[in-house]
Amino acid sequence: MERIPILKMGPYLLVTIQVDMHDRVAMALQDELTEQIVKQRARGVLLDISSVEVVDSFIGRMIGNIAAMSKVLDAETVVVGMRPAVAITLVELGMALPGVRTALNVDAGMTLLKTAGKVATNGRPAR
Amino acid sequence: MERIPILKMGPYLLVTIQVDMHDRVAMALQDELTEQIVKQRARGVLLDISSVEVVDSFIGRMIGNIAAMSKVLDAETVVVGMRPAVAITLVELGMALPGVRTALNVDAGMTLLKTAGKVATNGRPAR
Repeated sequence: MERIPILKMGPYLLVTIQVDMHDRVAMALQDELTEQIVKQRARGVLLDISSVEVVDSFIGRMIGNIAAMSKVLDAETVVVGMRPAVAITLVELGMALPGVRTALNVDAGMTLLKTAGKVATNGRPAR
Repeated sequence: MERIPILKMGPYLLVTIQVDMHDRVAMALQDELTEQIVKQRARGVLLDISSVEVVDSFIGRMIGNIAAMSKVLDAETVVVGMRPAVAITLVELGMALPGVRTALNVDAGMTLLKTAGKVATNGRPAR
């Protein structure tokens, strides 16, 4: 059951990370997520890491990569549910996730995406 | 990382099952979910099983239990993302989940909960 589901919620995609992120799982997630962003014409990605208790440079890099990939596909990424210990570790590892937005929980993240969408759509073509 | 996160989305809770359901994980989920329903005053529970490829009588019973527990706490449960093979197995096991609503995906489940909420609130006290 080593597959991270991508849930469509209106114009956004929700990814909840529960399993340990091996290379293979992370690669599969990146592939599927980018595919789904295009297929579903998603405007944003919510990445829930509330179950992630321990983080290393691999996971940190993966979060950064997902955000960067979504960005070039014109979808905003918001990381939600980060635990305090994870925030401490990320900064200590020198991975403060520049350019990645964060929110306390899914509700707040959703609000952030909705607000960002309204501002960002000015001047770019609707789809 | 053997913990299933419960995400609050407005008046609903979303549970995505990704990990194998051992006894301990299932019990912890039941405990936490019932606690969260009360704490967050949730009106409904979305149980996403799109990552569940194989189902047995234990998981079938657990889904039934979660729905029954939510019901007595006045929250509606909708099971979303069931794979065809899982549906076949559940029926073959004689567990057709009576009383549990299902929907194709999270979006459809959310719509179902919203509609159900409107109908069901007639005649029962607001909270």
